[in-house]
Amino acid sequence: MNNSELLALFKEKAVQIDAVMEADLAIVESPLLAQIIRHAIFQGGKRIRPLLTLLAASLVGTPPEDTPRLAISFEYLHAASLLHDDVIDHATLRRGAKTANTLWGMEPVILAGDYLHAHAMALASEVGGPTAMSLIGRATAAMVESEFMQMHNATEMLISEEKYFQVLMGKTAALIAAACEAGIGHNQGSPAQRIALRTYGTNLGLAFQIVDDLLDYLGDPAKTGKVVGNDFQEGKMTLPLIKTLAKAEAPDRERLIALLKGTPQERSRELPHAQAIIEKYQGFSLAREQAEALIQEALAGLTIFGEAPAKTPLAGLAHYVLSRDK
Amino acid sequence: MNNSELLALFKEKAVQIDAVMEADLAIVESPLLAQIIRHAIFQGGKRIRPLLTLLAASLVGTPPEDTPRLAISFEYLHAASLLHDDVIDHATLRRGAKTANTLWGMEPVILAGDYLHAHAMALASEVGGPTAMSLIGRATAAMVESEFMQMHNATEMLISEEKYFQVLMGKTAALIAAACEAGIGHNQGSPAQRIALRTYGTNLGLAFQIVDDLLDYLGDPAKTGKVVGNDFQEGKMTLPLIKTLAKAEAPDRERLIALLKGTPQERSRELPHAQAIIEKYQGFSLAREQAEALIQEALAGLTIFGEAPAKTPLAGLAHYVLSRDK
Repeated sequence: MNNSELLALFKEKAVQIDAVMEADLAIVESPLLAQIIRHAIFQGGKRIRPLLTLLAASLVGTPPEDTPRLAISFEYLHAASLLHDDVIDHATLRRGAKTANTLWGMEPVILAGDYLHAHAMALASEVGGPTAMSLIGRATAAMVESEFMQMHNATEMLISEEKYFQVLMGKTAALIAAACEAGIGHNQGSPAQRIALRTYGTNLGLAFQIVDDLLDYLGDPAKTGKVVGNDFQEGKMTLPLIKTLAKAEAPDRERLIALLKGTPQERSRELPHAQAIIEKYQGFSLAREQAEALIQEALAGLTIFGEAPAKTPLAGLAHYVLSRDK
Repeated sequence: MNNSELLALFKEKAVQIDAVMEADLAIVESPLLAQIIRHAIFQGGKRIRPLLTLLAASLVGTPPEDTPRLAISFEYLHAASLLHDDVIDHATLRRGAKTANTLWGMEPVILAGDYLHAHAMALASEVGGPTAMSLIGRATAAMVESEFMQMHNATEMLISEEKYFQVLMGKTAALIAAACEAGIGHNQGSPAQRIALRTYGTNLGLAFQIVDDLLDYLGDPAKTGKVVGNDFQEGKMTLPLIKTLAKAEAPDRERLIALLKGTPQERSRELPHAQAIIEKYQGFSLAREQAEALIQEALAGLTIFGEAPAKTPLAGLAHYVLSRDK
């Protein structure tokens, strides 16, 4: 399966997932609520979480017919958390479009997030039973706990690599791992198979986020739709910076710390300088190597599934995470 | 069972419910998250929802040992929705204390609401299975839909009694009814028993909210902890006003409408005048009569439970709703 065949398969699955969400969301009554939810869901998004549930379920046999309905609950949870995140961050743009809170104000958007969140959990319970619910319960708790850890970290300026990974676990990896494990669980996979795919999902999620951090510094705005250096401007400690601070000699280290203590304007002006320091200490390539090592871990999680055909797209997705440029 | 015996029983159950929540909340890791959740839960509250789950379960036999854990999920859902409501309304005071959003800002409070919401649903699923989850799914959807209905109604000034009751159904009655029905369901009650207690809960919830509306106009601030006439000042259409507008002669009706179109300052100044008009057309006593009729409906829902001892406190609670002064 080459890269374009893989992307064609993902596209096909995404269309299927969208159709299931489209049909499911007919239950929303209030026109404004429906509008906000549709904006949150159909304004882009790669459908990675439901795709993983579907592929995971296929790893252990033909999935039950209702698997797509379990799968979409993970997209809903993701969309609900983005709605609230954008309110909390006062974000104005996401995926190149105005955020829901910019269009409709924070009041209805908080409520729409609540609706989607509750609906996702009710749906997961209905289709996936206690297995799915306990996975989702743990993942959503981890998501919120990690946001609090991040808030707490924001008060200390220099965070360790360990804390960075703790935050990442909750922020991205927990829900992705749950989406994977729920697929296996829904198709009666064994505990060993569940653990294996949780390993795949966790490492995939961590690598995904590191690549995001790298794209923030090195991406092409025409492709990512985002300004370069946004994380640095916000003073956000991501892996390239953490790796650099751990290695840099005193003058460079102090220069970076002075910038992190400065204003966003200074950081924006001094971005090329910061990038040069990170480059000098291989901060980008070290982060990249770590993402690659995590992807190797993810692939190792697929080993026990022998010759299952769904292994190919899951392995492909892992490689795609490293090669993506948007 | 006289009133003071009843209140003593409720108090005893509330202490038990609080102890179960106290033990359960030990799982929260972040200190700030734990602090916000504890503030949301232990800063007062009558524990009506979990009390109803416990009493409902007792109606059909000795409840399973884990019933209190199912019961607290309804208190959590209620607390989660109050956290988000206070953010949305920029409320500064609740139950005489500063709101969480006043103390910690909206960011962590939105997240704490999400945590509590997800935890409640995971807990309900774990203890109450698909029955509890489908009840909660429906109730939470109804809660959000009714908030959107209310936002929509706010654009039309005069709302009908029908719309008022539609909003109330979602705002208060849906979760109370679900708490009742979940108790019956958890103790293997029959479908007829579930419907009967849903009838009880729905009507109790509606009556409870009407009494709230009456206390807003007629309550003693020393007891309610709230300013008199707050709803009118905000231009909120509650039952006494709706009943009055439906009956009033042209000059009185026009006077009220002019005030509703005016500023909060004018409404505050003219509150005694508005109260006199409502009094003139029996707006308060008509609302009161409706609350009494709803309580009769609620009590009728208890009929099929024969001589079950838990009927007494449930009937007592219904009467208490009418007699409460805070």
